[in-house]
Amino acid sequence: MPNELALIRRIATLARADAMDVRVGIGDDAAVLDLPRGEQLVAAVDTLVAGVHFPTDTALESVGWKALAVNVSDFAAMGAQPRWALSSLTLPNPDSALEITRGLLACARRHGIALVGGDTTRGPLAICVTLLGGVPRQCAVTRAGARVDDEIWIAGTLGDAAAGLACVEQRLQASPRDRARLVRALDKPTPPLALGIGLRGVAHSMIDVSDGVLADLGHVLRASSLGAIIDPLLLPASAVMRRVVPDPVAREALQCGGDDYTLLFTASARSAPRVTSIARQCGVRVTRIGKMQKQAGLWRGANGARPARIATSGFDHFAAPVSAPISGEPPG
Amino acid sequence: MPNELALIRRIATLARADAMDVRVGIGDDAAVLDLPRGEQLVAAVDTLVAGVHFPTDTALESVGWKALAVNVSDFAAMGAQPRWALSSLTLPNPDSALEITRGLLACARRHGIALVGGDTTRGPLAICVTLLGGVPRQCAVTRAGARVDDEIWIAGTLGDAAAGLACVEQRLQASPRDRARLVRALDKPTPPLALGIGLRGVAHSMIDVSDGVLADLGHVLRASSLGAIIDPLLLPASAVMRRVVPDPVAREALQCGGDDYTLLFTASARSAPRVTSIARQCGVRVTRIGKMQKQAGLWRGANGARPARIATSGFDHFAAPVSAPISGEPPG
Repeated sequence: MPNELALIRRIATLARADAMDVRVGIGDDAAVLDLPRGEQLVAAVDTLVAGVHFPTDTALESVGWKALAVNVSDFAAMGAQPRWALSSLTLPNPDSALEITRGLLACARRHGIALVGGDTTRGPLAICVTLLGGVPRQCAVTRAGARVDDEIWIAGTLGDAAAGLACVEQRLQASPRDRARLVRALDKPTPPLALGIGLRGVAHSMIDVSDGVLADLGHVLRASSLGAIIDPLLLPASAVMRRVVPDPVAREALQCGGDDYTLLFTASARSAPRVTSIARQCGVRVTRIGKMQKQAGLWRGANGARPARIATSGFDHFAAPVSAPISGEPPG
Repeated sequence: MPNELALIRRIATLARADAMDVRVGIGDDAAVLDLPRGEQLVAAVDTLVAGVHFPTDTALESVGWKALAVNVSDFAAMGAQPRWALSSLTLPNPDSALEITRGLLACARRHGIALVGGDTTRGPLAICVTLLGGVPRQCAVTRAGARVDDEIWIAGTLGDAAAGLACVEQRLQASPRDRARLVRALDKPTPPLALGIGLRGVAHSMIDVSDGVLADLGHVLRASSLGAIIDPLLLPASAVMRRVVPDPVAREALQCGGDDYTLLFTASARSAPRVTSIARQCGVRVTRIGKMQKQAGLWRGANGARPARIATSGFDHFAAPVSAPISGEPPG
């Protein structure tokens, strides 16, 4: 069992932060980093706790991947470029540190991020990742910029991760292959970072979908002091999802389940061709699900039917976990 | 019991980060911050876990203070100016969040730091603080710059926090007033930040004393590829410490016990008048305890006696906790 110092050395070797902008990396009291001229500093932090944010039997490598990915998702939602990560590992025993770090570094490589610091400590399994980077001055996209009549867009699809969790918790049946894809969406989210950066100056407001799409849209409504009307039947679903849960009503609950780590953004209707063009360049599907309006609240309004107000409640980390069975149909 | 969103709002209200350089603070996906021109970004992160880094019955306000203070200590050791903090709270119940945040903000105000982000989540009590700030280009003081014949200095005194822990664990007796002072050193460390910043360009190497003075000096030796000779009898002790543990040999163990959050630095002998002058301006006592040498290893060499090699083992977060009684004399 390596001691703490030996462990930090091994992590430093794995991380090999030889990026030009890392002046002092792992191994000193703090990291010293060069931010490019004209950029504002962007910082996000998220902690994943075993049994709360991931099932306790999740592969450690996936835990490391996801801990960084959820922060990359926050950066995507600001239109910001992530550059450096610090990871603070709390571990029952130090052996898990290297496997977690390997997963984190795999995600870091995908997004061009250097691991530049952190700490390791004893305790119940948790990982706190801080992500740092930059955005050109005045270019950050916040939740607060949505305008009346903006169209509301979703990048990618919704619900695969929630369905993956339902599979893990044996509330949902799927073929081994579909199950593997859904669980992968839960364990190894891949936020559409290039799309978030590409939407600078186009999206008026943006947020990452993590608590559940209705809850996250609710954050945009509050921050922008506006309301919205959406058609939940337009929520985008993957082919796997449509196969495993063919009933649209049963699917809707999963699609609002959170842990998607994709983007919700608003843009004016005349930007629609630009939005679809940027999305195509990034290889990401984008779907309009409704529009912003002056009238407060979130409304459901499909096919000219009378709009009905819906709740924006999503995942609350302090609420008791709900594990009700889902009335999905098993695959044929 | 507030839900997560209400909690974040209350924390945001407490934090009121109205600093000019905070472009986007608490409440969005990430913080956006202005770093002054010509500065390099400095980042440190540290997690405190209940029962590992602080006794489980520590006041929550002290937990918040200490979680930030240990990071300020890292900044002091780089000669860097802290500006912004992000706090990631893991809590068995959300009620503790506000008390912890109050303590963190008290420490933040003392050092001119704005709380700009973070998250709250359910789980065993732990707090992960990320501290961000700047240092003028090329001015960061690392562990690696020590030179042969540099004098080794300690800021402040050593061992009060270790004695405080010994009091809490009932391994050490002290009068109620002395006990309160020692426990305060444990719960609410006050790192000499102004001194660390003042020593830019004067100190060749610097580290914060957190794992124990010998272990931390060991880090400097390794990073600088040098050895050192010190006289442990010169380790500075507070008046309270000398009163509670009058025997110098019994005191030495406590003085190497860690959790001091003060500075160890090296500087050339001809800088000694500048060092003492800067320290006087900062209201901090500084003490020379030895010097750097070419010969590897850490050596004890008092009063011309033959030097003896000593170990640089300090606090290892993964080693089992040692709680042996201390042979201190109770106060008269």
